[in-house]
Amino acid sequence: ESLPSLFSSNPRDFSVPNSSWGTEMRQLYEHYNSQCEAVTDGGEEQGGPWKRLPSYNRSLKYAAAGVYLSKIIQSKARLFTRNIREPGAAFEYAVFVNKKEQRCVCIFQAGHLLEGPPGNVHGGAIATMIDTVTGTHACVHSGFVMTANLNINYCSPIPLGSTVLIESSVDKKEGRKTYISCKVTSTDGTKLHTEATALFVSVSVSHLLKG
Amino acid sequence: ESLPSLFSSNPRDFSVPNSSWGTEMRQLYEHYNSQCEAVTDGGEEQGGPWKRLPSYNRSLKYAAAGVYLSKIIQSKARLFTRNIREPGAAFEYAVFVNKKEQRCVCIFQAGHLLEGPPGNVHGGAIATMIDTVTGTHACVHSGFVMTANLNINYCSPIPLGSTVLIESSVDKKEGRKTYISCKVTSTDGTKLHTEATALFVSVSVSHLLKG
Repeated sequence: ESLPSLFSSNPRDFSVPNSSWGTEMRQLYEHYNSQCEAVTDGGEEQGGPWKRLPSYNRSLKYAAAGVYLSKIIQSKARLFTRNIREPGAAFEYAVFVNKKEQRCVCIFQAGHLLEGPPGNVHGGAIATMIDTVTGTHACVHSGFVMTANLNINYCSPIPLGSTVLIESSVDKKEGRKTYISCKVTSTDGTKLHTEATALFVSVSVSHLLKG
Repeated sequence: ESLPSLFSSNPRDFSVPNSSWGTEMRQLYEHYNSQCEAVTDGGEEQGGPWKRLPSYNRSLKYAAAGVYLSKIIQSKARLFTRNIREPGAAFEYAVFVNKKEQRCVCIFQAGHLLEGPPGNVHGGAIATMIDTVTGTHACVHSGFVMTANLNINYCSPIPLGSTVLIESSVDKKEGRKTYISCKVTSTDGTKLHTEATALFVSVSVSHLLKG
């Protein structure tokens, strides 16, 4: 199997259902995806309130700026959350954004290769998803950003194999700083697994390039 | 290649040099490992101040309690930081602990599958290593613990492929709570990449099992 090219017209989008997705993932996906479809409002066609964000092997949100392409072409690097190809083994997720409400929702199914405490997801894997969702949200809201702070409270462990909701909202933007808060809950919202705040700082392209 | 058995007399220890380790990793490993060897002090043989902690595919620190074995045997789960078998592609690290000084040092080489911002390590991968090192340190100090809080300041990005030092120290222990602080620096200590505080809570085995 060859890797999909970043520069083909259709790079592979990992944020769509595959055979590893359980019932909860499929139902949640349908729930939000159905609200992404174009609707007719007073004869004028417009999108639904939610937009699904595609996910690739690389940080295309950066590549989209058209600056890193030469660096990316030379690199065999792969996005941390997409570095395992076996469906269902690690991070299965899809992110939806509601620009009007400044909210993001991620549906996340945690595979068996994310273990920390026996039978439960590693705190670092949870942090990774929180960074991914809040960082994506901050990019949608503020353009290029880098993570400056993550403050994460782990309230209840997440069993391997389970599906959870990760919801983020923009708290405020002050100059170069974007403040996002986030919580990870059971899919029915009744059990709080994790809550976090995140601070992102807008950066120039030259700052990122100097590494 | 068959997976090493958890129950063989010699499960594979990933915290030893392999062909992917660069010069800095090897030099740092030798530096700390040489201080782990038994020394003769006044005719009495005793260990050096540092002890290298082995690392396996599973959370053996939990399995060592002898409680989870049946659960672990049935599971194909693998420790998040050891879920990629290609040497050098993801997390390469070794942890050394100095019980007398209540310090831990981890030497960490970041592979190309840990990418977040182009060319740099994902904030979640850094959080994962901080959770791993401080959590291991807390377990050494206080026995069974779970992560309750991670507060991470990202100061300067870590380029993919580079080697960094992760140092942690125990700040205090109050009842069931163990407070650890941590910093990630360049190998010469001059550049601060990340700093963090972590709170761990001692848990009973039954709490962990109920997942």
